[in-house]
Amino acid sequence: MDKPAAPSPFQRLAIIGGGLIGSSVARAVRTALPDMGLVIADSNAAHRTKLSDLGLADKVFADAGDAVRGADGVLLAVPVGAMADVVADIAPTLAPGAILTDVGSTKAGVLSAMQAAAPKGVHVIPGHPVAGTEQSGPEAGFASLFDGRWCILTPADDVPNAKVDALTQFWQALGAKVELMDAAHHDRVLAITSHVPHLIAYNIVGTASDLEAVTESEVIKYSAGGFRDFTRIAASDPTMWRDVFLENKDAVLEMLGRFSEDLTALQRAIRWGDGDALYTLFSRTRTIRRSIIDAGQDDAAPDFGRHHSDDSPSDA
Amino acid sequence: MDKPAAPSPFQRLAIIGGGLIGSSVARAVRTALPDMGLVIADSNAAHRTKLSDLGLADKVFADAGDAVRGADGVLLAVPVGAMADVVADIAPTLAPGAILTDVGSTKAGVLSAMQAAAPKGVHVIPGHPVAGTEQSGPEAGFASLFDGRWCILTPADDVPNAKVDALTQFWQALGAKVELMDAAHHDRVLAITSHVPHLIAYNIVGTASDLEAVTESEVIKYSAGGFRDFTRIAASDPTMWRDVFLENKDAVLEMLGRFSEDLTALQRAIRWGDGDALYTLFSRTRTIRRSIIDAGQDDAAPDFGRHHSDDSPSDA
Repeated sequence: MDKPAAPSPFQRLAIIGGGLIGSSVARAVRTALPDMGLVIADSNAAHRTKLSDLGLADKVFADAGDAVRGADGVLLAVPVGAMADVVADIAPTLAPGAILTDVGSTKAGVLSAMQAAAPKGVHVIPGHPVAGTEQSGPEAGFASLFDGRWCILTPADDVPNAKVDALTQFWQALGAKVELMDAAHHDRVLAITSHVPHLIAYNIVGTASDLEAVTESEVIKYSAGGFRDFTRIAASDPTMWRDVFLENKDAVLEMLGRFSEDLTALQRAIRWGDGDALYTLFSRTRTIRRSIIDAGQDDAAPDFGRHHSDDSPSDA
Repeated sequence: MDKPAAPSPFQRLAIIGGGLIGSSVARAVRTALPDMGLVIADSNAAHRTKLSDLGLADKVFADAGDAVRGADGVLLAVPVGAMADVVADIAPTLAPGAILTDVGSTKAGVLSAMQAAAPKGVHVIPGHPVAGTEQSGPEAGFASLFDGRWCILTPADDVPNAKVDALTQFWQALGAKVELMDAAHHDRVLAITSHVPHLIAYNIVGTASDLEAVTESEVIKYSAGGFRDFTRIAASDPTMWRDVFLENKDAVLEMLGRFSEDLTALQRAIRWGDGDALYTLFSRTRTIRRSIIDAGQDDAAPDFGRHHSDDSPSDA
């Protein structure tokens, strides 16, 4: 027996920003919730043309305020540094009773900005689907981006449970698993699972390209030794990531302090030839990889399943 | 017209150590140079059984000294910390005129150890194929591991060109591209393209698992935000990597000093809200990823080509 189609959590969803994440949400809605009314606003004219060509929405708007008119769901998919301005732009036309959410990588600042600007009767439930690639723009999106990934919701205190449930159902329909969390805790968790990893990846790619004794051509040729892994996330959108670090300053600085402290201890172990200290850490970290694979949060194939050739276990 | 089979660069190759790299060399030899005599020694009894079961060599030995008897090519595929002992073990039975090489990740120490112990008439040409996965052991190997990857040779000064050419042809037959380099320069290049990236990956995985405010379960669930990329190389063989850091101490400490200096500057930019400094670095690093893909040193698909689902551009 076929599973009956789930009722659409929204009559009309307005997505503000049609980049990698916004356009992936649109694609996933078209696939999983085809009856839902869907409009997108994007301030970039080239993006609007692309979004229209791809047929990802019923209507594509230049102005976010126009797009949210009559929408019972509004999802902001812009860099976190632009959230406050967008919320101010749409506040006059937001429908009472609408759910206002987003997909930003930091949550405390977005929650405050939304609470400060949203009119009474609008339900503020910031969100963060922990998913993405290093690419940007409407063409980089795809419908399965959220399959099996976690989406964290950090609702304002006064939001009725039924509204949180509706947004939960929305993300579940798109394939995600949903968790509720305090916004400040979200920002500390993501500082270590996402923000600091991006920062050190950006940093080592910068360090490598500034060396005098090693040429850039050598860095590129021998990048398969490990460096190339870091260049992927260091190719992520610069505006998005600048905003993340400015918005989540306190948690990032805290986690970065711990990272640097631990790295100094490793540096000392290397200087003094303390092989046991190195071996102990290197053995301990191996088990975390296994847990991530067991939890379905990464590809089990060696080398991320990178393409080698037909006899590689990664292609099995 | 079929390309004629290349003549075997060796009559009989002895591989010492049948782990990921040693067994991959054996598989690649069986595929590309099927007429070459091939023996393997491994001190681990379980590995020997597996190597015999897989049929990867004409004969599998427990003792490295026995394996090298009569071989005109000897390739050491053991952790770099074990090289000096293995060279001492095999020195009495090494055949005059043989090429002695290895696959270790550091080269200056290996070169010295080989030169100190190898009998007169043995040609010392340390080597390093810049290829691997995070897995270990004879079952983890595959024949295409070296396809399109670089293999760096750091020959001793007194080695005749013809011997270097023979080893070059060997690696080319296995699909690799070959570059000659001074051993000390190799160690500095690999410190930045491989050793420091591994160290900071090990380090952040350690930092994340020591936090009190963020549980290990949260780290695992939200690892798709970037952290999971680091767990792959932090799952690499602990013995191999302990030895790399102890052997390549000076170059690693130099590159690590630069990395930390640059990270401190980024930390300061975050603390003082200097968005322009962050944006400038984050834009610059994007181009290196492109160069690595253009050079054929990584998968062009987004997200390393990780499996998402049928509509993902990574699976196109």
